[in-house]
Amino acid sequence: MARIIQKYGGSSVATLELIQGVAKRAIAAKNAGNEVVVVLSAMKGETDRLLKLARELARDPDSRELDNLVATGEQVSVALFALACQAMGEKVKSFLGFQAGIKTDDKHGKARIESVDPARLRTELAKGRIAVVAGFQGINRLGDVTTLGRGGSDTTAVALAIALQADVCEIYTDVDGIYTTDPNICDKARKMEKISYEEMLELSSLGAKVMEIRSVELGLNHGVKIHVRHAHSPREGTMIVMEEPDMEKTPVRGVTHSMNEARLTLVRVKDEPGVAARILSIVSKAEIVVDMIIQNRSAAADEGRYTDFSFTVPLSDYARTLELLQAAQKELGASQILGDDNIAKISIVGAGMRNHAGVAALMFSALAKEGVNLNMISTSEIKISCVIEKKYAELAVRALHDAFGLGEANEPAKIA
Amino acid sequence: MARIIQKYGGSSVATLELIQGVAKRAIAAKNAGNEVVVVLSAMKGETDRLLKLARELARDPDSRELDNLVATGEQVSVALFALACQAMGEKVKSFLGFQAGIKTDDKHGKARIESVDPARLRTELAKGRIAVVAGFQGINRLGDVTTLGRGGSDTTAVALAIALQADVCEIYTDVDGIYTTDPNICDKARKMEKISYEEMLELSSLGAKVMEIRSVELGLNHGVKIHVRHAHSPREGTMIVMEEPDMEKTPVRGVTHSMNEARLTLVRVKDEPGVAARILSIVSKAEIVVDMIIQNRSAAADEGRYTDFSFTVPLSDYARTLELLQAAQKELGASQILGDDNIAKISIVGAGMRNHAGVAALMFSALAKEGVNLNMISTSEIKISCVIEKKYAELAVRALHDAFGLGEANEPAKIA
Repeated sequence: MARIIQKYGGSSVATLELIQGVAKRAIAAKNAGNEVVVVLSAMKGETDRLLKLARELARDPDSRELDNLVATGEQVSVALFALACQAMGEKVKSFLGFQAGIKTDDKHGKARIESVDPARLRTELAKGRIAVVAGFQGINRLGDVTTLGRGGSDTTAVALAIALQADVCEIYTDVDGIYTTDPNICDKARKMEKISYEEMLELSSLGAKVMEIRSVELGLNHGVKIHVRHAHSPREGTMIVMEEPDMEKTPVRGVTHSMNEARLTLVRVKDEPGVAARILSIVSKAEIVVDMIIQNRSAAADEGRYTDFSFTVPLSDYARTLELLQAAQKELGASQILGDDNIAKISIVGAGMRNHAGVAALMFSALAKEGVNLNMISTSEIKISCVIEKKYAELAVRALHDAFGLGEANEPAKIA
Repeated sequence: MARIIQKYGGSSVATLELIQGVAKRAIAAKNAGNEVVVVLSAMKGETDRLLKLARELARDPDSRELDNLVATGEQVSVALFALACQAMGEKVKSFLGFQAGIKTDDKHGKARIESVDPARLRTELAKGRIAVVAGFQGINRLGDVTTLGRGGSDTTAVALAIALQADVCEIYTDVDGIYTTDPNICDKARKMEKISYEEMLELSSLGAKVMEIRSVELGLNHGVKIHVRHAHSPREGTMIVMEEPDMEKTPVRGVTHSMNEARLTLVRVKDEPGVAARILSIVSKAEIVVDMIIQNRSAAADEGRYTDFSFTVPLSDYARTLELLQAAQKELGASQILGDDNIAKISIVGAGMRNHAGVAALMFSALAKEGVNLNMISTSEIKISCVIEKKYAELAVRALHDAFGLGEANEPAKIA
């Protein structure tokens, strides 16, 4: 007997028929001899519908009231799921965040789980019931309803898996699992059987929006086995696990791209302590999130005294960022402010990258072969990202996918 | 400075515009120097929408899960109300039933409030905030969400008025107040300035669906001043108060009618202890609610040994009741089972009735003058009801309204 957490996203419970479908799936898991806890998101579109109502009433809606409002979405889902199960003759009980013992901090709209007391869930499981828990929500010390931010139901699922020492946390979604790259762009994209948390983290942050990043971190810190799979297919998906030795044999495991960023460059700012901080504090004060940051020595004659400073921001914040920098140009001492919203970011990810020289070289040469020029490069332990011209994005993804042999399951690319 | 509870029903918060309207009304009350607690129902149609979803999933939906489902309706209302107030620059906080300290028993779907701990509301009021509370819901000892049954928001409002020792509990609705009879039937119908709880109770149970009956009882038991008034009109409505001496000067205060009942008669059952109980237990086991019950001595030669037994049930349960009785006819020893679904019930209500002889006589003669035959008569301390043929219902209402002079505010009928 295993203890299983099953999390179903909004698109998997978008209609009553789909709810009945996932109810059947949970019951089948229980009938196979398992203890089953189900975590649900709001029915697809419901959270947006509620937020739209709020925005019609208030330009800057209070986050505590927003939480009271949107938390109803998951509450409706779990009640309907429970009713569907009961109509199928199954014993089940629904729980709101606070009833499932999910305690959070006070940050409405983006609360963090502080503790989980799963005593009630344990009791229900012991009675042979399926427990269905409203994802995305908890309660703070005051007794106020909080929400965990977009994608928070994944976090709820992983947190319950930890608290209940579950054998596996199944994340059901509308894709088959984690692919080596976006199948819409590259028809050789292949579903991976396994991926390490670290690789998944890099993929999440790069836009493979299958799982919320905080939930992967949480899974990593507590060694929760996560199985990402399709809600309406019996096929196995992708297991997210601790790094395994054979993973390192394949230096690159996935290729991702993002078209939702823009680049800004401050030309010839003084190369002295505090400059970077001054630039970024202007941006962060406006609550704009910076992704890549690169500082290059200026190649001019006064080398060593001046530098070029570049960073990327979400495309939607581009115009505002440009304005902020222009307003501060004098103060920052930049000779010019350059902007480019015609970019794409292409990344390769793989835990094996650490031990393999030549990965970056292969990446750059594969791109060069296609005539793709590199604007910015940034690397982490298990990731290399390049900013390129937007029109080359799909071509670059396919070229890299081929270059690293990701389409062939058993023949990873050989690298020096 | 007064402490005011304002309860707005579903039709008063049916749209965002209406919610903004009632928000303005609450803010105006606060700006006039009062402490204001608002209780809201779900937006009109929302509870039915949710129940429809539930019924599509389960023929006999579990009441605990239904409570989790429908409680979201009021939760949405209070969050939107709070956002509307905040957008108008007002300090406000929304509270779910459990956050407002409303503790109930375990009867999901028709829970009774056991206690109210308004500590958090007091704190918010002291901070100069409007507190808006989700009506209709509470929490039981297990920490499960319960609902108080249809119209339960009235009960929430009165219970909070008691717990907070409010000066008045304002029930905002889509009518001006309590009328002497249905204005749709009788154009002389007049709004009453005051009515006693007892009169209101009789009117509630007879179908003047302005306020939920339990909330009136609760108000009576604790002497809460209740003001029933229109949500979108500044006019004063009707105050529900303790019986006052001048009320007794007017023997009859209102005329009501109901077309939603049917009559059943068991002819010639044995007149011995236990017969009535046997008959009614058949009906009550089927969860059919009986209203009027009348037992007449049979006029036949064997008088004293046999009797005719009649009662009324909701029209919707008529066919089922008839079947049940026919199936049990032999066992009950009835010579015949008669049914009539072509009836109306007409009632006159007034606390002053107690001290005035001749009220019944005037009622019966007024009906006789119009050629209306009486099928059944039943009386309580402050009410007389007659069952008549359905087609006479409106005529009877108008005749009685005239006969007791209810159209003329200052000239109540003189009775011997």
